[in-house]
Amino acid sequence: MTADVVICECFARDGLQHETVPVTADDKVALIDAFSDVGFPRIEATSYSSPVHIPVFADASEVLSRIARRSGTFYKATCPNPKAVQRAVADLDAGYGAEEISLLVSATESHTQKNLRTTREGQWQNVAEMVRLAAGRFRLIGVISMSLGCPFEGKVDPSSVLEDLAHFAELGVSHVTVGDTTGHGTPTSVRSLFERIARELPSTTPIAHFHDSRGTALANCFAAYDAGCRWFDSAIGGVGGHPTQIKYGAGFTGNVATEDLVNLFEAEGIDTCLDLDKLREASRQCEAVLRRELMSRVARSGFGHLAA
Amino acid sequence: MTADVVICECFARDGLQHETVPVTADDKVALIDAFSDVGFPRIEATSYSSPVHIPVFADASEVLSRIARRSGTFYKATCPNPKAVQRAVADLDAGYGAEEISLLVSATESHTQKNLRTTREGQWQNVAEMVRLAAGRFRLIGVISMSLGCPFEGKVDPSSVLEDLAHFAELGVSHVTVGDTTGHGTPTSVRSLFERIARELPSTTPIAHFHDSRGTALANCFAAYDAGCRWFDSAIGGVGGHPTQIKYGAGFTGNVATEDLVNLFEAEGIDTCLDLDKLREASRQCEAVLRRELMSRVARSGFGHLAA
Repeated sequence: MTADVVICECFARDGLQHETVPVTADDKVALIDAFSDVGFPRIEATSYSSPVHIPVFADASEVLSRIARRSGTFYKATCPNPKAVQRAVADLDAGYGAEEISLLVSATESHTQKNLRTTREGQWQNVAEMVRLAAGRFRLIGVISMSLGCPFEGKVDPSSVLEDLAHFAELGVSHVTVGDTTGHGTPTSVRSLFERIARELPSTTPIAHFHDSRGTALANCFAAYDAGCRWFDSAIGGVGGHPTQIKYGAGFTGNVATEDLVNLFEAEGIDTCLDLDKLREASRQCEAVLRRELMSRVARSGFGHLAA
Repeated sequence: MTADVVICECFARDGLQHETVPVTADDKVALIDAFSDVGFPRIEATSYSSPVHIPVFADASEVLSRIARRSGTFYKATCPNPKAVQRAVADLDAGYGAEEISLLVSATESHTQKNLRTTREGQWQNVAEMVRLAAGRFRLIGVISMSLGCPFEGKVDPSSVLEDLAHFAELGVSHVTVGDTTGHGTPTSVRSLFERIARELPSTTPIAHFHDSRGTALANCFAAYDAGCRWFDSAIGGVGGHPTQIKYGAGFTGNVATEDLVNLFEAEGIDTCLDLDKLREASRQCEAVLRRELMSRVARSGFGHLAA
């Protein structure tokens, strides 16, 4: 049976990046193994970002070396720069590499400089170098942050996002995450952007990566689906925000909650091929590790399937 | 300037009905006055339900007698039975009545018996009697609970909801709240139902009243808007759930959060004509009264308006 949608569970990376509760490598491995059991076809496992800047992922290689690999699942590691790709290649050579690496750019100059500490031009040079270093050994995932608005620069021109997607395609990167990093997208802007992607770049597989900063993430996912998008990122419990600070204007809410996204798809008759009982269990496990109730509605109310 | 949508603020009734934090009449009056200042065209102020069964609204007449009336705002009181309408009429005679009363039915037999302690047939007889007692002195609002699914009976036949709407119309009730009481609606089922209402009952004004039990409320509101619906119910902070129990399968989440709904509309260029600064202030006031952070995303992240 083939799923109608491809969901990437992002709890272990995007979810934990700004988390203030310390999470051990043991916990991360147990959680990622639980996500594998749910049947996710993609799992964002860690990041090769600098341990100096983002110490929470200093255990990237350890985590990747210890998780159980489920056949059919791609484990992803985020790579912000060429040095990160060199680490990804070294881990692959050591026998426990990621199947996917993501290559980050941002739609706006201001966010590129704050988040990646370079210019957009500099980052595109980095990406070209990263593609070269990856040497065809990973599925490459482009990531465009701030695709639907930026707290520093305001509205983002969809044509410029289309150009970034085309730039990735020229580098051979045909899977690209369209990130609404600070939850500025609306159903209409999302639909319009994804319709243009489908029309103008039919060989690119866009991945909807929406944050729920203003409660619109689920509506935006559905708009993207309606516009033909089939790949989605989400995080159990809706984690991935900034609980201690309003950083980048994102507020405390994070990724769209996996439980709620899966429930929506299943209720709409869109098959996720995930094990819903195991998803509920993984959801409880995430809350236990972070020692608080997280933000999924379905985690409280249960899946909404109704008898006919 | 005319608003594109008519939003009813439901915090003081649907929001408080199952609330465990005690809220004084003084607090209710102050909150409703704050909602009036925001400019809501409709405010659900209280309920004439039995003080024995729902003691939180024992102060219904006091609250209605003390609130400041904003010109252009309809203050609503919920009426579950003929006795409630008699109280509404008495308060009107005393000079401080509600402008609107709502008349409740439920789409399913099981929920009618649990919630209204009668059968559907019995409740329709009640509603006819209530319309007679109201004697044309209020704007009457029909309410159909469980319109998009019922935890006891499963899927609800949209044709049966259409019949209930037609039944209200025969009784002269042309504004009808279509309630997704336990958050089982999805964008597709909502769009389909509201398209049928627009097509088959063009003289009825449907009101979307969606609960966020599974995170879909905002997506469902947008689907209803797309299908022509312009009247919406919401509650500041997304209150209106059942914090102490999973009652009726609804879980802890309540109405769609007003802040998030207003933000979505404004971001989509749909004019609410509400004062957003005062809405943020009212949102803070609601959190102060309930002494906890409520569930609106926008209350944490701010409105998402971006410069062009």
